[in-house]
Amino acid sequence: MENKTFTDALPLTMNSSEKQETVCIFGTGDFGRSLGFKMLQCGYSVVFGSRNSQMSSLLPHGAEVLSYSEAAKKSDIIIIAIHREHYNFLTELIELNGKILVDVSNNLKINQYPESNAEYLAQLVPRAHVVKAFNTISAWALQSGALDASRQVFVCGNDSEAKQRVMDIVRTLGLTPLDQGSLMAANEIENYPLQLFPMWRLPFYLSAALCVFFFFYCVLREVIYPYVYEKKDITFRMAVSIPNRVFPITALILLALVYLPGVIAAILQLYRGTKYRRFPDWLDHWMLCRKQLGLVALGFAFLHVLYTLVIPIRYYVRWRLRNINITQAASQKENSFSTTSAWLSDSYLALGILGFFLFVLLGITSLPSVSNIVNWREFRFVQSKLGYLTLILCTAHTLVYGGKRFLSPSILRWFLPSAYVLALIIPCIVLVIKFILIMPCIDNILTRIRQGWERNSKYSTLNKKSDV
Amino acid sequence: MENKTFTDALPLTMNSSEKQETVCIFGTGDFGRSLGFKMLQCGYSVVFGSRNSQMSSLLPHGAEVLSYSEAAKKSDIIIIAIHREHYNFLTELIELNGKILVDVSNNLKINQYPESNAEYLAQLVPRAHVVKAFNTISAWALQSGALDASRQVFVCGNDSEAKQRVMDIVRTLGLTPLDQGSLMAANEIENYPLQLFPMWRLPFYLSAALCVFFFFYCVLREVIYPYVYEKKDITFRMAVSIPNRVFPITALILLALVYLPGVIAAILQLYRGTKYRRFPDWLDHWMLCRKQLGLVALGFAFLHVLYTLVIPIRYYVRWRLRNINITQAASQKENSFSTTSAWLSDSYLALGILGFFLFVLLGITSLPSVSNIVNWREFRFVQSKLGYLTLILCTAHTLVYGGKRFLSPSILRWFLPSAYVLALIIPCIVLVIKFILIMPCIDNILTRIRQGWERNSKYSTLNKKSDV
Amino acid sequence: MENKTFTDALPLTMNSSEKQETVCIFGTGDFGRSLGFKMLQCGYSVVFGSRNSQMSSLLPHGAEVLSYSEAAKKSDIIIIAIHREHYNFLTELIELNGKILVDVSNNLKINQYPESNAEYLAQLVPRAHVVKAFNTISAWALQSGALDASRQVFVCGNDSEAKQRVMDIVRTLGLTPLDQGSLMAANEIENYPLQLFPMWRLPFYLSAALCVFFFFYCVLREVIYPYVYEKKDITFRMAVSIPNRVFPITALILLALVYLPGVIAAILQLYRGTKYRRFPDWLDHWMLCRKQLGLVALGFAFLHVLYTLVIPIRYYVRWRLRNINITQAASQKENSFSTTSAWLSDSYLALGILGFFLFVLLGITSLPSVSNIVNWREFRFVQSKLGYLTLILCTAHTLVYGGKRFLSPSILRWFLPSAYVLALIIPCIVLVIKFILIMPCIDNILTRIRQGWERNSKYSTLNKKSDV
Repeated sequence: MENKTFTDALPLTMNSSEKQETVCIFGTGDFGRSLGFKMLQCGYSVVFGSRNSQMSSLLPHGAEVLSYSEAAKKSDIIIIAIHREHYNFLTELIELNGKILVDVSNNLKINQYPESNAEYLAQLVPRAHVVKAFNTISAWALQSGALDASRQVFVCGNDSEAKQRVMDIVRTLGLTPLDQGSLMAANEIENYPLQLFPMWRLPFYLSAALCVFFFFYCVLREVIYPYVYEKKDITFRMAVSIPNRVFPITALILLALVYLPGVIAAILQLYRGTKYRRFPDWLDHWMLCRKQLGLVALGFAFLHVLYTLVIPIRYYVRWRLRNINITQAASQKENSFSTTSAWLSDSYLALGILGFFLFVLLGITSLPSVSNIVNWREFRFVQSKLGYLTLILCTAHTLVYGGKRFLSPSILRWFLPSAYVLALIIPCIVLVIKFILIMPCIDNILTRIRQGWERNSKYSTLNKKSDV
Repeated sequence: MENKTFTDALPLTMNSSEKQETVCIFGTGDFGRSLGFKMLQCGYSVVFGSRNSQMSSLLPHGAEVLSYSEAAKKSDIIIIAIHREHYNFLTELIELNGKILVDVSNNLKINQYPESNAEYLAQLVPRAHVVKAFNTISAWALQSGALDASRQVFVCGNDSEAKQRVMDIVRTLGLTPLDQGSLMAANEIENYPLQLFPMWRLPFYLSAALCVFFFFYCVLREVIYPYVYEKKDITFRMAVSIPNRVFPITALILLALVYLPGVIAAILQLYRGTKYRRFPDWLDHWMLCRKQLGLVALGFAFLHVLYTLVIPIRYYVRWRLRNINITQAASQKENSFSTTSAWLSDSYLALGILGFFLFVLLGITSLPSVSNIVNWREFRFVQSKLGYLTLILCTAHTLVYGGKRFLSPSILRWFLPSAYVLALIIPCIVLVIKFILIMPCIDNILTRIRQGWERNSKYSTLNKKSDV
Repeated sequence: MENKTFTDALPLTMNSSEKQETVCIFGTGDFGRSLGFKMLQCGYSVVFGSRNSQMSSLLPHGAEVLSYSEAAKKSDIIIIAIHREHYNFLTELIELNGKILVDVSNNLKINQYPESNAEYLAQLVPRAHVVKAFNTISAWALQSGALDASRQVFVCGNDSEAKQRVMDIVRTLGLTPLDQGSLMAANEIENYPLQLFPMWRLPFYLSAALCVFFFFYCVLREVIYPYVYEKKDITFRMAVSIPNRVFPITALILLALVYLPGVIAAILQLYRGTKYRRFPDWLDHWMLCRKQLGLVALGFAFLHVLYTLVIPIRYYVRWRLRNINITQAASQKENSFSTTSAWLSDSYLALGILGFFLFVLLGITSLPSVSNIVNWREFRFVQSKLGYLTLILCTAHTLVYGGKRFLSPSILRWFLPSAYVLALIIPCIVLVIKFILIMPCIDNILTRIRQGWERNSKYSTLNKKSDV
């Protein structure tokens, strides 16, 4: 349950005549103490096992401190809140036989040891039932009750009854246990809290590189060039105008990069005539972070929208419009109205708005709670059909934007084309290849390959119609 | 767990001395092979059962292929990856007695057969424990690990232990099992992956019809009429101006349609004097897709906001403002300031902004993860109180918009009123009826009816105060 | 499963030869009848226990009505749909021994009785297994199937098998059981449906107070002052201009108040030299509603963005721009361009946009489904690092906004400074203290304290390196 108050005020009193369950905690470090504090709060008896069985003011009130072997006798469930390097002494404690040992340890680095701490513990004390749990919860969160972050506790272990009992404790503490299967999962569970957005790295670095490149490209064309030739100081353009060029370009390129691996994969499958050969690793990794690429692109698109909408409030824009008005008022000449310009301007805006709208829709459906309630067919429909429609709209938006500028004389500056022209290259390539791939003749072959058919297999008769 | 890397890199090695569990898969089709591949990756032994026990290059490395009866002997758990039409031969295999059969099949159409495939299988092999699972996962997702879509595997079955064992396998594969109860649920589970947004159809078609109608209505009044009488080509209005009329109108009507079934239901209950008679089917269906109607309305409102905010950037608007300036500058006359116009314009904008803000709030609370953490009382408060406030604000926004235009002469064109006038009909009806319904005298009766009281029941004494 | 159609169309037929499970419901009130109706729909046999065993037209078709003791004999599972005040007669029914009693009752007030209804029931019928469930579901939702709100049913009980059987029923009804542990949790589960946004109260009242104060402050300075001295009627400013001053100020102050308790806590910990003494209650409560404070602040920031973006569409703004144009056109003088003004205006806008963008990111990561898939390290990174960056950007945005105005003469009106100056006080204090706290010398001490070190502890040797 996500609601804080629900848990934070757990009853401290025991009205019923139930006997209190006793839990033993080995180790009196910060995490051990915090866990003990929380368990006492939730109605458990807590016994600490320690080398030094002296009571400490740091330990929560109501807890007992005993020697390791004394403490182990008091409870079926022993929480091992000790660093892995000091697990050795546990081999000597015969009291642990048949007990449930809960490994709560974390490492300092991902894959620090050849095997996970929990599996190592299971090897050291083979007669105990080792369960991995609690390592994703911070000591501070346990103490303060400020469990805004995840309340999920990943639990794994080979003994199903031991796992069930640990999951019951997790629930009583107001947390959500998630059964992750056997102890083999411990390695992943131990790596989990050390990760810092692993899937977001590629999209982040990629977008940062694109931003920096296009920023300097635009500064060169639009700030340095006029300064060199016209001695105009328009550095202020670096605050809004140039970002508003860089952001949409980055967004469009990233969006195209979401769909590029899909067409590359299709070409590979067509070329190989089978879907059963693995893709190269770079393609696999690329395909797995498409969602993140798309969300970063959406972020840039959002910034582009805001930067565009503030245009009329900018001092520079108001000043320019005013000066145009004054000169025109002086010449007393009415402006002529160009229907073509009106059409271009309006369809440019309409395409952008619709593209952004679909992009936001895609973003919302990629929220975990939303993607969980759609089935595979619906998810594919949104991410593939609507996704390509978004790409088409955004590419058209950029093309129409160009449509107004192609005629102006000063396109090439120092032989450099406008930045948006560069932005169009990848999206256009993706759309052209996709257009070829969906032509019936090619699409049929691809569909058959994806259903398991093989071009060169002598065993293809094996793929009987009767099997799913 | 949603995090991909967590599962995708599941340990392939078995450090511990555990014996590998063996799973048998009947059928070597695409889905069977993909499932086998994933199971091998996750540390299971896999035996394929096949008519033709010859090893194939298509089958994942490390798997064994045997005849059906040989394969069935190797494992307690047999995954039936065969099309339903070929289930018949299973009746002859006595090896299946007492085994857990996992039905993974899907149909091509919703409700294709009178009973679900899993129930049919349970009838064919009455001595086995049939569990339905895995049918919502695609073969491609299993192979590639690209489980961006739902990781949820719906599981149902009559034998609780068999179900538990299948759920353990699901967990080990990095997926999330969802217990759906007994085998009766199999029908729904089999229909699930075939659905394509069933609750969104009515809102979608309704909004499409409204959009098309109002688009042509506005084109008639605002493009064709001026063309006929003034020979002006203002077709460019179809890109931004007219959509920005159609979208808010559609949004407002859809929002009113979210609250209309509620007031109809209340009137029906008042008229019948009981809440225990079923509503007509159309009303039931309408009430069930209110959330979707509201979200579609929010989409149109979002588009309206964007279309409105780009107004000052449009070429046409800039051109018109410039020309007004020039003519006024020529006449050298200062504009007079109308406080009424300022009030109307500003309150029009403020009402729209506040209405949109509440609308977005409503949308956010309808996200599954948010609506899960609010209780029934909170949900009702948001969806009912805030919902009506949103409707009031949006209706007022439209009324004030009209306030500025009612005075202008050219309202009726070809006897057609402005489109926004039509948009106001349903919202005003809903608000008036709701206003009547919340008057204390009527509200009291309605509240009693909804608590189970019956006007005409001779048994109404039965509704004793003691019962909940 | 969240998908409505899935459950609403549960099969009413029983193809398989299974015997129907019978459930007994004590009490024929509204909730009992609705639950019975739903259970019949889902394939259960339902027997009502009632004082008056006469069949009623109100009871769902297919259900049986018997006396309490007769009904209790028919089933292992008895749902007690009776108000707590009438529980007494249950003590006399010896048929209840060994049965599973499901307490579905709710109270009228939070903590109405010393112990929860379920615990009270367990005391009355000590030989039965009491399970708390279904109290969070409304009768109306059960009948209509309109389970848009939470489908979660909190279940708790001391007997694990009894709990499991009730959870199976919950699943069969298409709801999601959430195991909350032992019967001790019943109190919280009973309070849950009575809550109305408990964590949102402080943020709500605080923001309302800030809004009202700053609204009148601004009205005084910007409407009454000019009226008194210049007799100008600019009351229309109350619709857009003044809210657009009040909202960003409230947003900025609330955002600073999100980070203020953190720095106060750090100062307290530094001063006390330990993290093991509890914070004062007001600080605890403040820290627990930081997320809600931040989300309210985001709401105001969103309103500020919309109010700002509509500026160019406002009648008043257009009128003023036009008049400036006319007077300038009359004077035939070109405007001079100030690069400083352009820089200030553009960086003001850019800072605001970037700040708002990060703010939206923070809001998205606080969605339950998103915060569930990030680990503790990632959550801290976003909420702390990105959070402070947002605060810095928004404070800088306000400072630069001032930068343009500091030079204008009429700052003080009736000795009152501009409202935005007041808004800057708390954010600047927070940022200055935070800047001091992250200086290495202080940060090191704080980090050690938060890892469990104590300045004045004679037992600090106890905090051995070996313990987690």
